[in-house]
Formats: sequence, C-alpha cells, structure tokens
Amino acid sequence: MTPHPFDRAMRLDHVDTGVVRGATEPAWANMVGPFGGITAAVLLRAVESHPDRIGDPLALTLNYAAPIADGEFDIALRAARTNRSNQHWVMELRQGDEVKTTATAVFGRHRDTWADIEARPPKTAAPEDLPRGDFIEAIVWAKRYDMRFTEGPIPDEGVPSGSSTTTLWARDVDQRPLDFAALAAVSDIFYPRVFLRRGGFIPAGTISLTTYFHADAAQLEAVGGDFVLGSARANGFSRGYFDQSAHLWSRDGVLLTSSHQLVYFKD
Amino acid sequence: MTPHPFDRAMRLDHVDTGVVRGATEPAWANMVGPFGGITAAVLLRAVESHPDRIGDPLALTLNYAAPIADGEFDIALRAARTNRSNQHWVMELRQGDEVKTTATAVFGRHRDTWADIEARPPKTAAPEDLPRGDFIEAIVWAKRYDMRFTEGPIPDEGVPSGSSTTTLWARDVDQRPLDFAALAAVSDIFYPRVFLRRGGFIPAGTISLTTYFHADAAQLEAVGGDFVLGSARANGFSRGYFDQSAHLWSRDGVLLTSSHQLVYFKD
Repeated sequence: MTPHPFDRAMRLDHVDTGVVRGATEPAWANMVGPFGGITAAVLLRAVESHPDRIGDPLALTLNYAAPIADGEFDIALRAARTNRSNQHWVMELRQGDEVKTTATAVFGRHRDTWADIEARPPKTAAPEDLPRGDFIEAIVWAKRYDMRFTEGPIPDEGVPSGSSTTTLWARDVDQRPLDFAALAAVSDIFYPRVFLRRGGFIPAGTISLTTYFHADAAQLEAVGGDFVLGSARANGFSRGYFDQSAHLWSRDGVLLTSSHQLVYFKD
Repeated sequence: MTPHPFDRAMRLDHVDTGVVRGATEPAWANMVGPFGGITAAVLLRAVESHPDRIGDPLALTLNYAAPIADGEFDIALRAARTNRSNQHWVMELRQGDEVKTTATAVFGRHRDTWADIEARPPKTAAPEDLPRGDFIEAIVWAKRYDMRFTEGPIPDEGVPSGSSTTTLWARDVDQRPLDFAALAAVSDIFYPRVFLRRGGFIPAGTISLTTYFHADAAQLEAVGGDFVLGSARANGFSRGYFDQSAHLWSRDGVLLTSSHQLVYFKD
C-alpha cells in the first residue's frame, strides 16, 4: 500500500549522530518550495523520532531562512538541554552547505493541573453544513486538506476586506488521524492575512512561525481524522512585515494550538 | 557617571569570533535568576552589536532552558543565513558547559508599504491619572519600571479572577529612552497570567518567549522615555502549561510589539 502523502513527507533516514535526511514531497508543494507547515511538521518529527526525546511537543519555532529546493535535505538536531520534565532542542535544515531553516523546540511531560480555555472557539455552522472551499490551482498542498470557510475565504482580486480574520474547518482530505506533526502543519494553513486586507494576491512569505501545543496525545487521539476549527487574524502591518495569530480547536472546543507568525510582504 | 542599570546589563565583551561575554546585573534579579526580559534584551543586543548584522530586529525567540546563575555568561552567536533584506541568527547562552538559554532572531530592513493596526490599544486613563503600582519586594527587577495598572494588577492572595487580562502603562523608572533591547525587556513585563486566574502566587516560569517587533528605529525614538501601554492575556491553561499573548503600544497608538510566551505552572 502506498503511504499517505503526509507520511511520505515525514520519512527520515538516519545519516549520522544528530543528522537525519528527508526529501520534499511533491504533494506538499507551495508556489516556491514546500508548504511551510510541512517543513514545521518534518522538523518536529525529527525530534519526535530521536531516541533521546522525552515528553510531548510544547513549543516549536521555525525561521524560514531560504526556500527549500525540490529534493533531499538534511536536518541536524541536538538536545541543548534535558531537564527532569522538559527538553530543549536546536535544529537546522540544510541543503548542501546552505541553511534553509533554523528551528528550536521544547518538549515536556504533562501533568494534571487546573485547566481552562480563554481563547474560545468562534460560533460557526457545523462543517457538514458548509461547502468545501478551494484554493488557486498553483497551491498544490491545499489539495491535501478539506477546508470549509465560515469567514474570510481567499478574496476575489480587487476586493479588500476591513477584517483580516479567517475562520475555517479543516481536516486531512483522506481523514488521516491527527498527530503532533500533522497538527504542526495545520497550524500554518492560514494564507497570508494581507491577501484579505488588500484584496487578492500580494507577494508575501512567512519568516518566523511559533506554535504552542496545548493538546496532549490523548486529546489528539480523540480528534482522529475529524475536522478542527481554526481562526486567524493579523495584529499589525508595518513597513514590509506583519504578524498573524491563530488558534485551532477540536470540534468539542478543546484548544489544540496557539500559533503566531511574522510575514514579509511587498505592497 | 555610573551607567544606567539597563546599560550595565547590556555590557558585552568580545571573547572570540562569535562569542561575547556578559554578566548578570543585580538590579535585574528575579526570584530565581535574572528577569527573563533582561535575558531577551542582552541576546538581542549581542546580535545588534555584531559587525555583520543588517537591519532592525523583526523576530526574537528565547527558550529558557535553565536558570542563569549570578555572574558571567557567554553568548555564542552566528548568522546562519544572510539574505538581501534579512538575516537569520542562532544564539546560545552558556555558563561553563551548561546551556542556559537558546535563541533565534531575524533581523531585516524595513521599506515603505501599506500599513494598518488591527490589534488596537484598549481605552484607558492616562498614566498621569493612575497611581504607581507595586510588586512584591522579592521581585527586584520590577523596581526598574514605573508601572501603572489599569486592569489586572498583581492579585491579592486567595482572590481569583475570571479574566487573565492585565493592562498597564510602563516606563523605565529613570525614563531611559526606549531602544530595541529595552523594548524586548518590556515585552516580558507581564507576570504569569495564572497568578491572576488562581488568585495569588503559583510556581510558574516562562519556557519560551517570542517577540515580533513592529516598530522601526524612528518610531522607538519618538517614544523616548515615555510610557508605553501593554496588555496581556492567556489563551489556554492545560496540564502544566499555559500561553499568554501581549501587545505594546506607544501613547499615540503605534503597535510596537506583539509577544507570546509559553509558561509552565504547578497547581
């Protein structure tokens, strides 16, 4: 049986102590290089599959230094510090001598505590009652998701919006069950908010992406291949850069992730 | 003339190519180790003072791996990638053989573009019309700021709040003019949101901190030593960890930073 395209993109071979090798997967192509979310996923997976790893992912930051070319890449990774309940990882994705992505991750053990959610999911129709949205053909990776927009779909050219908010339901198109790496990918599903504000395609790209994982493994298992609800908005646009913040929730309102990114744009 | 305590904390000596040495400054002590914001500031300053640096700070992420002991520390830093308009830095703060903090930063050049602010400042009284707030004695660094709370001051023991929001005006107590490093420090001025929700002191500490810099050098210069307005709230608390997001604005409503942190807590 052919592996699912997500699992193909997560394949990593051991090269040396602290170095694994992967390759770009055509199904996850973006306009230039791969979808940023799949790069986040494979870097997280590199840590997850390291024999020294403890606990679950808590925080992941990627800095997209240069486009990843089609083909193989190496990920160098090391645990800079291991404490009793958490672990700090440093990573670098390279092609030949060139650094394409730098990253850090914090993993840790969960324990039972008081809990609450302040970032509540917006009220929306059920995904079953919404039509499936579509992206432009050139965005290959978007075909990997079944997205149902309730607010802020890809804007028509020349139709700016006063709000940068997009809210949508999303799931893997084949309903592959969600795991931490897949969740890291979905966290980057929101197209650049400047498209919405300016009405159409604007040259833009993520520079830095940070995801905080609120869900533990049991909560992810409960989601399985179901839709998750996501909502993203920008905070500020200024002199060539803007930032956007997003949350993902399970259908029953569990906060799965908070994520944030800084994006460059030309306008 | 004795340098200002902030400038004392920013002192870095050249040790080797890509290694500078600093020291903790007693005026910035926290309960365990230094204030996280001063560590953010000194790592940013290490990049700012590197001869290869281009542009202004855009994004800074710190992972607080272990408490920094009183005394000297080394910062190893390198530009992992330099592009035409931005630059990706990787840093590590060490004491002896131990990694205490890992960090990444993105610097870049600004250019004129369309601009807008969606994260608007909350409406508040002017700082002149508010009393100066105080922290508990043990938090030495808090004396470095004149803080005027309009919402969510340090809670009284045993008085939980339904909201995790704190809004305050803050400026350097000596009105030292704001620069990027000082702005990085102020971004971490918000005490852990779990104190507010649970009503009192709860063991908690920042694991990871990300700050996006919206302001350029001219906008910071315009602030000078004046108050900035800050507002922070939590997104979710779950199984030992929570995240909080904050913004800082100038008095005339310019968004200076968006920052986010993941915090562990025991409750």
